[in-house]
Amino acid sequence: MQRISDSTVHRLSKYYRTLRHMQEMGVKTVSSEEMASRNGVTAAQVRKDLSCFGAFGRRGLGYNVADLKRNIGRIMGLERTWKVALVGVGNIGRALIDYDQFRTQGFQITIAFDSDPAKVGKTIHGVTVRDEANLERDAATEKVDIAVVAVPAAAAQALVDRLVAGGVKAILNFAPINIKVPDGVFIRHENMAIEIEALSFAMTNPKLARGS
Amino acid sequence: MQRISDSTVHRLSKYYRTLRHMQEMGVKTVSSEEMASRNGVTAAQVRKDLSCFGAFGRRGLGYNVADLKRNIGRIMGLERTWKVALVGVGNIGRALIDYDQFRTQGFQITIAFDSDPAKVGKTIHGVTVRDEANLERDAATEKVDIAVVAVPAAAAQALVDRLVAGGVKAILNFAPINIKVPDGVFIRHENMAIEIEALSFAMTNPKLARGS
Repeated sequence: MQRISDSTVHRLSKYYRTLRHMQEMGVKTVSSEEMASRNGVTAAQVRKDLSCFGAFGRRGLGYNVADLKRNIGRIMGLERTWKVALVGVGNIGRALIDYDQFRTQGFQITIAFDSDPAKVGKTIHGVTVRDEANLERDAATEKVDIAVVAVPAAAAQALVDRLVAGGVKAILNFAPINIKVPDGVFIRHENMAIEIEALSFAMTNPKLARGS
Repeated sequence: MQRISDSTVHRLSKYYRTLRHMQEMGVKTVSSEEMASRNGVTAAQVRKDLSCFGAFGRRGLGYNVADLKRNIGRIMGLERTWKVALVGVGNIGRALIDYDQFRTQGFQITIAFDSDPAKVGKTIHGVTVRDEANLERDAATEKVDIAVVAVPAAAAQALVDRLVAGGVKAILNFAPINIKVPDGVFIRHENMAIEIEALSFAMTNPKLARGS
């Protein structure tokens, strides 16, 4: 089976949200056209994305909302709870501990680290901040699945190296710097400025930008 | 000229960062291969993206770092300062007021609104919180270019409608809900859970995921 592109994985996330919302609304079935229009893509794209994982729909009948949601959830690993640690309890880190979109999808942050003695031992949104000095040890003891790194750029690579030494296999990096990780460790970079720059592009070139 | 895809716009953002970093390091020229390897894409993709806007490089000589940065900056509207207002001074809003990646790219938040009387009048990272009751009026008076909406899902559509009534043409939405805007208004949605879900997918399907 061929590798799945990031774009497909991102779209699967969006389809999952659409399906969860429809399920909450009591909707039983959905067509690829409806899925497409709610996600700003074509129906052909929806069918192609879902076909990577086998055929879930029936021609003319559409998809069963509950089944498709469960299937995408299983594929994406959203039907389980991951052990998530935060490194860096600054402005962004604090916001993430309490971030609904993490909590409701199985990514609740239950462990946090900081190097600032003024923060260590404090409890923030129910999570007690640990001393970053014990990062490798605690990451290993607590069997952390995913580490969210929200520290200044200059500190990020060294902290990621220590997380990897502690056995962490997945890193979500908020620091504005490219981080190197060994084979077998997954890393994704989050930059909240990318979308505001897309708006800047759209306002600068209204005729070239994708419609609103 | 055909419309530019979101993916291309996102890559231009990344190229701009790479070029800014190289310029700071004193690098004078860069090949499409080097740009590609620093951004996890192919050299052909780099050349294709840049060719949308005319030919900046010379075969065999690569791109002049300062020229290419200035050109992409101009295309993306990053060479100017936008007037950015924040609506919703919660955890995420507070983090954004002080977010380096906004500030250094011309997107400093200088106006903020909240409906909570306990927050109105308070100054946070140098920005005094205004009463949301005056949203339309103040958005118009202050000629806000971009509004960053960081409020609960249930409140988001009504607030965006009021921003649009106040003349705002670009919205960056952090609320986990699809927002409708009229033609001529641009909106982008930011969901910080998308990348952590990509990590969840990668750990659930290590053989299908893109390499780290």
